Amino acid sequence: MILTVTLNTALDITYRVRALRPHTSHRVTEVTERPGGKGLNVARVLAALGHEVTATGFAGGATGRSLRDQLARTPGVVDALVPVEGATRRTVAVVDGTTGDTTQLNEPGPVIAPAEWSAFLDAYEDLVASAAAVALCGSLPPGVPVGAYAQLVRTARAVGAPVLLDTSGEPLRRGVAARPDIVKPNADELAELTGSHDPSVATRDARRRGAHTVVASLGAQGLLAVNAEGRWRAVPPRRIQGNPTGAGDSAAAGLLAGLVEHLPWPQRLARAAALSAATVLAPVAGEFDRRTYEELLDQVAVTGEATAA
Amino acid sequence: MILTVTLNTALDITYRVRALRPHTSHRVTEVTERPGGKGLNVARVLAALGHEVTATGFAGGATGRSLRDQLARTPGVVDALVPVEGATRRTVAVVDGTTGDTTQLNEPGPVIAPAEWSAFLDAYEDLVASAAAVALCGSLPPGVPVGAYAQLVRTARAVGAPVLLDTSGEPLRRGVAARPDIVKPNADELAELTGSHDPSVATRDARRRGAHTVVASLGAQGLLAVNAEGRWRAVPPRRIQGNPTGAGDSAAAGLLAGLVEHLPWPQRLARAAALSAATVLAPVAGEFDRRTYEELLDQVAVTGEATAA
Repeated sequence: MILTVTLNTALDITYRVRALRPHTSHRVTEVTERPGGKGLNVARVLAALGHEVTATGFAGGATGRSLRDQLARTPGVVDALVPVEGATRRTVAVVDGTTGDTTQLNEPGPVIAPAEWSAFLDAYEDLVASAAAVALCGSLPPGVPVGAYAQLVRTARAVGAPVLLDTSGEPLRRGVAARPDIVKPNADELAELTGSHDPSVATRDARRRGAHTVVASLGAQGLLAVNAEGRWRAVPPRRIQGNPTGAGDSAAAGLLAGLVEHLPWPQRLARAAALSAATVLAPVAGEFDRRTYEELLDQVAVTGEATAA
Repeated sequence: MILTVTLNTALDITYRVRALRPHTSHRVTEVTERPGGKGLNVARVLAALGHEVTATGFAGGATGRSLRDQLARTPGVVDALVPVEGATRRTVAVVDGTTGDTTQLNEPGPVIAPAEWSAFLDAYEDLVASAAAVALCGSLPPGVPVGAYAQLVRTARAVGAPVLLDTSGEPLRRGVAARPDIVKPNADELAELTGSHDPSVATRDARRRGAHTVVASLGAQGLLAVNAEGRWRAVPPRRIQGNPTGAGDSAAAGLLAGLVEHLPWPQRLARAAALSAATVLAPVAGEFDRRTYEELLDQVAVTGEATAA
């Protein structure tokens, strides 16, 4: 199975209103709720691709129960979330039906107690032992040590499970130093980590910091992957208009699927780029338009070269 | 006990943000959750005044469980909510920390199935038998017949329980015709019911339609009460600045408390006006500033006359 870790899970709520006018009252015309947080989005995409996935992280309170109820109805995803005392945070996305724009309200999330973090580490140690790959995704909730991802990378590497790390800021900086197999920053996260806005310079620097493979998601410029074996760029055939939320999570799912299927890097990248583009057409993160995905899979242009052995 | 009915209960969520900017992302700095819906606000105020209260209506889903968990921690309020399949609606109030203004997002609420409405009617019939007074408050959720309040008024009158009705639109129009003891419209609701913006004309018309006593809440002009025994106006000594949400519900609680304590009308109105004003100083509906309430109680000016016998 593939193990995804979401320490800062969320119940993602989407409200549609006719038009958002600050300081007035609105009747919400449509409400949707989904398990959220980057690792849960990755898990849902992997499951939709036919992979066995186990999702861990934290869940608590009434919102955590709602999240787990919904996860239980997601075929292919095994719930291994660790219960906590605090309530799982909500995120509320208010979609303006007139303009299509979204206003986002994100709760801070519960404080994780030291005993809860210890319980998670025990659960994680058991789970990585049978994982074909591990995804560590998203921000850290309050109470979790900033070096958490570094510790989780080391635990996975100790049992030989390859690790993808997708986070930002100081947790990324520390996590990279623990030598994960793949990091998947976007342009901003990569620049923040390395101090360089030049993707060639920045990916080289991120590798020097400890990542075996750096896959930078560069928006319309597609994906740039660099490792000891080579350097590739994958660009979808056309720009797709829609909701980019979750596109990066689908790219991560594509990379993990390619990894456990032992695909060569150009094929992994084609899959990640096609999934990412097909997610832009889906209404919510963690879902993708399957027809677009299958159609784009052969059309993604992958250029690059393997390093001479 | 006093029975309060809230057919369209809500989990009232308040988010504080630094400044609300549409179409951007916000970190919520403070989250509060309260049982909501007008009848539950009335119940909480009555309980704080020392009355035994039973709260009925509908609750369902994870949001309904949260609401009931919180109600269980409210001393003096007995939970007699009827379970439904659909999830209790949320309301989200986004408070702009810079301006203090509030943007309100109200979910529509679950559709009540015919069998659920029947189950409620059975529960209600049992509860009114031991009620000293009944409050019927707020809007009707989808699926409940528009004549619901008329039916509930008749059931209560059949067992001799006095009824206060606080709703609007067609449910109010039909409910009034069933001859409730008290209706408590605000100026807009009264004008919508009667077609007149003149409170003297409108209260007379509302009585002609079936209400024994009409208590109109007229904002800064205080409360105007008219019935067969007389006509009174109660005005607080000063205008209080704050959050008016729930002020009307506190007025209803004051009227009910006065009713079951057999206070003369001028004292009932003083209590209702003082509670209403003291609620403006509380951060959320269903709560009031006790010191302000006690201070205002003797300062509310009640003028009027009893009708010659």
